[in-house]
Amino acid sequence: MQILDVDLGERSYPILIGEQLLDRGELLAPHIRGKQVAIVTNETVAPLYLERLMQSLGGYSVTPVVLPDGEAWKNWETLQLIFDGLLSARHDRKTTIIALGGGVIGDMAGFAAASYQRGVDFIQIPTTLLSQVDSSVGGKTGINHPLGKNMIGAFYQPQLVLIDTSTLATLPARELSAGLAEVIKYGLICDEPFLGWLEDNIDRLRELDQVALTEAIRRSCAAKAAVVGADERESGVRATLNLGHTFGHAIETHQGYGVWLHGEAVAAGTVMALEMSRRLGWISAAERDRGVRLLARAGLPVVPPTDMTPEDFMQHMAVDKKVLDGQLRLVLLKQLGEAVVTGDFPREVLDATLRVDYDLLMQQSRA
Amino acid sequence: MQILDVDLGERSYPILIGEQLLDRGELLAPHIRGKQVAIVTNETVAPLYLERLMQSLGGYSVTPVVLPDGEAWKNWETLQLIFDGLLSARHDRKTTIIALGGGVIGDMAGFAAASYQRGVDFIQIPTTLLSQVDSSVGGKTGINHPLGKNMIGAFYQPQLVLIDTSTLATLPARELSAGLAEVIKYGLICDEPFLGWLEDNIDRLRELDQVALTEAIRRSCAAKAAVVGADERESGVRATLNLGHTFGHAIETHQGYGVWLHGEAVAAGTVMALEMSRRLGWISAAERDRGVRLLARAGLPVVPPTDMTPEDFMQHMAVDKKVLDGQLRLVLLKQLGEAVVTGDFPREVLDATLRVDYDLLMQQSRA
Repeated sequence: MQILDVDLGERSYPILIGEQLLDRGELLAPHIRGKQVAIVTNETVAPLYLERLMQSLGGYSVTPVVLPDGEAWKNWETLQLIFDGLLSARHDRKTTIIALGGGVIGDMAGFAAASYQRGVDFIQIPTTLLSQVDSSVGGKTGINHPLGKNMIGAFYQPQLVLIDTSTLATLPARELSAGLAEVIKYGLICDEPFLGWLEDNIDRLRELDQVALTEAIRRSCAAKAAVVGADERESGVRATLNLGHTFGHAIETHQGYGVWLHGEAVAAGTVMALEMSRRLGWISAAERDRGVRLLARAGLPVVPPTDMTPEDFMQHMAVDKKVLDGQLRLVLLKQLGEAVVTGDFPREVLDATLRVDYDLLMQQSRA
Repeated sequence: MQILDVDLGERSYPILIGEQLLDRGELLAPHIRGKQVAIVTNETVAPLYLERLMQSLGGYSVTPVVLPDGEAWKNWETLQLIFDGLLSARHDRKTTIIALGGGVIGDMAGFAAASYQRGVDFIQIPTTLLSQVDSSVGGKTGINHPLGKNMIGAFYQPQLVLIDTSTLATLPARELSAGLAEVIKYGLICDEPFLGWLEDNIDRLRELDQVALTEAIRRSCAAKAAVVGADERESGVRATLNLGHTFGHAIETHQGYGVWLHGEAVAAGTVMALEMSRRLGWISAAERDRGVRLLARAGLPVVPPTDMTPEDFMQHMAVDKKVLDGQLRLVLLKQLGEAVVTGDFPREVLDATLRVDYDLLMQQSRA
């Protein structure tokens, strides 16, 4: 088992990473203050892991809350089911909410923890690669609004993140790839050597090699923990974690939540950010193609939806959280391994980026 | 104009108290970061003060959000109207949400500010006596749930509280009395001399004497600011501010939100807390009667609803936020001017308190 510490002063917490941690109640106990625990999970994860986790929590009064599965349910109505469960079972302010599942479960359980009786304790047990390397670290919680993704939420830190790498055995291949989009992102924005490591190990990761997965998760969490530790409330460098996300959110919103997986939209969005960085003269075509090829080898889409026009993109991007005082800011690459957040680019370069034939670009990147 | 500072480290903020402050945009400007402002108010307050406030904010892009009036609307559906307004007008993360109205508006606008894009700036302009002396100070925000009051929310501090005492001229007498319940509370829990001052000035307050009102608001805010400053997240002494609230919330929940005003329920609940403190031998019958008489002179109900049984009270109090590990804790008086939060009382004394004939008690207190 590996332990990482996320340093946020009085809101610091550990991340435990290892195999079969789900059965080890002694890892959870030091982080549970009261006698009540609510486990928030979904219909897909519950049959696989809920019983095991409840066995690990034998000494507690446990309320399971099983939600429908999917980003399409990341809304107020579903969040309300968590509050209904907590209130029906009379959970008090010392209760602990455990998120058992992927990013959607973590985001909703975390926002429920932030809001229930104005804040109760929270533990993350992410069971997808995406949530293990991304959404379980950094304290972002929330739900979607019909007019925008993640528009309602809170910054709220967990007491503990427990990553059981064995749970990836039951993850569909498509979701594993979606998680790899975020793993590759860390290489692109702040760790060029890790990018090289990924080029050597991408096939092993897709084959669920446990050693390679553990290493990829550890390096990803460490990268994110370092960035978040430096900038908890996303006033500066933290925003670089959103490489590909502004374009990606536009794709998700336009297609309807849940049609593209988050990581898939981020992958296509990352290709657009790479292309825009090349057009600004910050990276070479060869460097752009390294990123595109690695994303493609991870089993990810590298072409945005062909039915999306530049106008569609602009409309959705105008409500993105990185818009400040009406100016659109994007995460772009100064070089491989170094991202910046900037609104300082000619509008024409963005327009041109939105008009690129990405099918052709993908084919050329393979040449 | 008087200025009070609420000392919460990096979340400190000033409270400005005075006449006709609504027209003084220069008091607001230093606390607004961006160019966008949303004013959240309700159908009762908007015709009275919205236009004047918008004039004070001439240099900003202002989005008014006018909600229906009343505690019955303090729910998710109404909160959603704020998010709809913010997103439709494309408010970004540097926007400022201003609450213009009473406690319900402050609680909802505050929770919207805490949750919109995971947190934006917030200014309180409370227009009722209750919200001026209570809910605008301390950072509590939230909405009700069908199973409990204020169950969903956040601790979230404003940038500024602006109290324009002139707005009390349009407040119905019944709501003025409801505010006085909280003013009297400060005397009971932590300021015995203030209790004496109130006994001398209660009639002037009900007649809207501006000098008396300003003094009562200043002393109330100072008392609350001191308590909140010592215990922002209600782990200890802050809970004494809830004198009468556990019984009072039970009354509000049982009667249906909005039937009794919050301050009215708190007044009757305070009488119950006084009576229970007397039964524990902590205060005398004469001291209890001083409290009961002052509440009655303020125009407040001092008798709980006659259709509520002891069982009704116990059922509603079991989900109160002051329940920890199944033990009910109450705010009681060790003496006039000194409150404690305790679960250390014989259950029979609580049962007896719930069975008291409060009509009779009220009549005797006048003797």
